[in-house]
Amino acid sequence: MKIAIIGKGRVATHMSRALQKAQHEVIMCGGKKRTQQVPEDTDVVIISIKDDAISSVSQEFAYSNALIVHTSGSVAMDAIPSKRRGVFYPMQTFSLERDINFREVPMFLEASSDEAMDTLKALAESISDKHYLLNSEQRKYLHLAAVLSCNFVNHLMALSYDVLKEQDIPFETLFPLIDETISKIRSMAPADAQTGPAIRWDEKVMDKHVDMLTNPMHKEIYQLLSQSIHEKALSK
Amino acid sequence: MKIAIIGKGRVATHMSRALQKAQHEVIMCGGKKRTQQVPEDTDVVIISIKDDAISSVSQEFAYSNALIVHTSGSVAMDAIPSKRRGVFYPMQTFSLERDINFREVPMFLEASSDEAMDTLKALAESISDKHYLLNSEQRKYLHLAAVLSCNFVNHLMALSYDVLKEQDIPFETLFPLIDETISKIRSMAPADAQTGPAIRWDEKVMDKHVDMLTNPMHKEIYQLLSQSIHEKALSK
Repeated sequence: MKIAIIGKGRVATHMSRALQKAQHEVIMCGGKKRTQQVPEDTDVVIISIKDDAISSVSQEFAYSNALIVHTSGSVAMDAIPSKRRGVFYPMQTFSLERDINFREVPMFLEASSDEAMDTLKALAESISDKHYLLNSEQRKYLHLAAVLSCNFVNHLMALSYDVLKEQDIPFETLFPLIDETISKIRSMAPADAQTGPAIRWDEKVMDKHVDMLTNPMHKEIYQLLSQSIHEKALSK
Repeated sequence: MKIAIIGKGRVATHMSRALQKAQHEVIMCGGKKRTQQVPEDTDVVIISIKDDAISSVSQEFAYSNALIVHTSGSVAMDAIPSKRRGVFYPMQTFSLERDINFREVPMFLEASSDEAMDTLKALAESISDKHYLLNSEQRKYLHLAAVLSCNFVNHLMALSYDVLKEQDIPFETLFPLIDETISKIRSMAPADAQTGPAIRWDEKVMDKHVDMLTNPMHKEIYQLLSQSIHEKALSK
């Protein structure tokens, strides 16, 4: 297919690589003249820009014959005014420094018609082994779950990193524990895999840990997550 | 070696299996008569019980000739009154339902003398490929880091699980994202790997997410972790 990508961020960069690898003709379009750069016979325009700008930028393609899609987890499909519109959301945490095997990136698809969905499915299958159909409402929740289990998890790793660095303990010592934590939830529900002082409600240990943290916000995070673990255990 | 294990919890169970596999003679001792069950010629008594009970139970072995150790991340070595004492802490999240490859479990060792440390090192090497020497103060911080990056991470997974379940989206769709999140921090510092709405300080998305969460405590967790990500980014 002939694909125009609007945007030059991390998602746009990784996706264009994957599409080129799958032998699609990919044109990267940027700057103010982006609409003029998109050829008449483009099959799909992929808008991969900041959430806030999707609505206004997609206006520019309102009269295009191409299928217009965005790549955002949290923006509704209807932010795009075109008749043939859709969503082409790759759920992954992309960094410019890292290569991603796009075949393992699950694609979440939504389209304004069966015909548009067929095009998106074909495109998704050409770059990834997994795609799911999801409406805008469901996708919002998927994105929320992704923030909890990726962005927030990464931040907890960052806090751990600092705690260990301060004590000259190599961060790598945590990897077997982290690996097992992640492996476990493939074979049991995370709530059933919970261990640690909060699930035992071991206040002595928890109080000591709160004392050891020096940043007031980190103390609060510790207390709140512990309470939440406790609450969840009680509600089972 | 001849090893007596006091306790019957998850750590005691997994450790006794690993020690038996390494051809040690292992005696599991429990109940009120546990001191009598420990043979005179025992080399090491491993006390693997609740943190709170370590101090009082180890009193019972104050006059034993054996090396007395506990397996806790958060209790100081000096909780044990014996002259020959130590800590034999396996850092892992143990579940009874899951087999653990103990060779990959890092062991953190502390001992009251060089002679005791030699014994603990030999014991550690017989069951695991990795051991580290750590004093009681450092081990407290290691344990704190383990809570942040294992127990709290697992809880965020549990919250994600519930969000997806409510929407009939399979939890497995998150696995590639989680895997990449964990892979990334082997090649870059977690703070540099941070992505998502909080690091961009995308208030529109964050406000929507907070609205979507129904439990007040979960709303607070979302806000606090987002603020903490933001604060950390600003302080770089």
